[in-house]
Amino acid sequence: MTTSETTPGSAPNRQVEVEEDVLRRVLDSFSGCTDPRLREIMEGVVRHLHSFIREVRLSEDEWKYAIDFLTAVGHITDDTRQEFILLSDTLGVSMQTIAVNNEAYRNATEATVFGPFFVDDAPEVPLGGDIAAGAVGEPAWVEGTVTDTDGRPVPGARIEVWECDEDGMYDVQYGDGRTAGRACLYSDEDGAFRFWGLTPVPYPIPYDGPVGKMLSAVGRSPVRAAHLHFMVTAPGLRTLVTHIFVEGDPQLEIGDSVFGVKDSLIKPFRKQSPETPTPDGRRLDGQEWSRARFDIVLAPEEIT
Amino acid sequence: MTTSETTPGSAPNRQVEVEEDVLRRVLDSFSGCTDPRLREIMEGVVRHLHSFIREVRLSEDEWKYAIDFLTAVGHITDDTRQEFILLSDTLGVSMQTIAVNNEAYRNATEATVFGPFFVDDAPEVPLGGDIAAGAVGEPAWVEGTVTDTDGRPVPGARIEVWECDEDGMYDVQYGDGRTAGRACLYSDEDGAFRFWGLTPVPYPIPYDGPVGKMLSAVGRSPVRAAHLHFMVTAPGLRTLVTHIFVEGDPQLEIGDSVFGVKDSLIKPFRKQSPETPTPDGRRLDGQEWSRARFDIVLAPEEIT
Ligand SMILES: [Fe+2]
Ligand SMILES: [Fe+2]
Repeated sequence: MTTSETTPGSAPNRQVEVEEDVLRRVLDSFSGCTDPRLREIMEGVVRHLHSFIREVRLSEDEWKYAIDFLTAVGHITDDTRQEFILLSDTLGVSMQTIAVNNEAYRNATEATVFGPFFVDDAPEVPLGGDIAAGAVGEPAWVEGTVTDTDGRPVPGARIEVWECDEDGMYDVQYGDGRTAGRACLYSDEDGAFRFWGLTPVPYPIPYDGPVGKMLSAVGRSPVRAAHLHFMVTAPGLRTLVTHIFVEGDPQLEIGDSVFGVKDSLIKPFRKQSPETPTPDGRRLDGQEWSRARFDIVLAPEEIT
Repeated sequence: MTTSETTPGSAPNRQVEVEEDVLRRVLDSFSGCTDPRLREIMEGVVRHLHSFIREVRLSEDEWKYAIDFLTAVGHITDDTRQEFILLSDTLGVSMQTIAVNNEAYRNATEATVFGPFFVDDAPEVPLGGDIAAGAVGEPAWVEGTVTDTDGRPVPGARIEVWECDEDGMYDVQYGDGRTAGRACLYSDEDGAFRFWGLTPVPYPIPYDGPVGKMLSAVGRSPVRAAHLHFMVTAPGLRTLVTHIFVEGDPQLEIGDSVFGVKDSLIKPFRKQSPETPTPDGRRLDGQEWSRARFDIVLAPEEIT
């Protein structure tokens, strides 16, 4: 960027010189950095921080507020609460990082945020099995295929799925060590998969800390649009971390608090009356249920 | 900023659209913010964070590293250690904020960083008094005048001064509650002031935490160029927070770790042999001493 792009037109010439002198001295201080990538990142951080301060003409009180805010974010963060990730999520920083690292490629399924609720080594269920495992909610039959971008089926793809219950709670939040609402399964020889889960519901991210205070100050909802998490892994193909969202969920209009929504990931969860026969003959004892389809297309590992 | 300025030329068109869609959604989320200044700041934060990620093509591992780094900065911060301020200082963010808020004005003395070692209500000393009060180091006689930008003397200006001892320690770091190396005094009817202090010496900012690790990773020194702090207050004039630096201090070449140096603030501290008579007849028992001059020019409170 050149000078004229980064400096407000309103500052008088001598003032502009003073501000650019500060920036230049800071950038020069990284000239001894022997790691070129680290140097590139630090220079980028500095260039943008300084541009920000100069553009908004940050006051000293606002600077102090920012220091106190970051301090509060640091102090609420512990092994189970990561407020910096919440901050990154709610400023779209997480989603932008995912966009940059999962380059759009032909018809490959889009990625979205990982979220804090994934657990390694979730139990395997057979195709058609129930991942709810006691998590309460409206049953949902989810099916689809895994293919590559040329439409070839991917057999044996590892599909990890996780979601919250009807109260918006993940099993890791129950506090009793139970596993529920998460599992892994593998696509069959045609690349197909199917399982019982729950119709996703919206839930708020933790909003009792500084990030929640920020959201409330700017008039934003802490609620995430209803979603079901997927992570799909297969040899030679790019690992896909994504969600599907629920067509018609009012939170899609209000806005997902972490900007995870892509139009291509919104799927109808078609309501079924209790009388409708289930695909696998499962008896739901008079409960309503839903069914959704998600066809997953994996990009090649190396995009050339 | 327009699109073409913020996006790397290398990303293919569809990828650029995806990244701009994320940014647009995040910016739109602040449309309900009723405080226009808060909205401007949040939009600025978001625009620069996203530009940064897109320009450097931040990897997911680098993002994770940044989250962990900020978490460590938060966790070392407590009532007496403010690592976020150290981070702001070492990235030149503090100095740039000061530059923006102390606009260059005619011949007014330049401002610099406040630092963490100021204490309210330091003891008053008479003109010519000794601010060292037991802090050990080479005595320095400092004198000058306080005037406005038209050269008119400012009588009764409140001059607060503070500095470290010859070991680079401020009194607040002694841990025994003593006051030493700090005082306030008032200019006389001609705007003149004079006091005994110590010849300033370089000292490192605390470097045993994540900021120190960052400085070491990029090959930077944590040391501050030798300086003596001033805060000068007078009715109708802009409060000046500044330092004077010591001409010939080798750290001026290496670089001040917080970018506080302005050429106009570098002053000779002329060495005096033990035999040289002192200005006020003080006997220094065979010690070397130095003398420096600092003429302070205060800007009007409101610059029009
Ligand atoms: Fe989630
Ligand atoms: Fe200092």
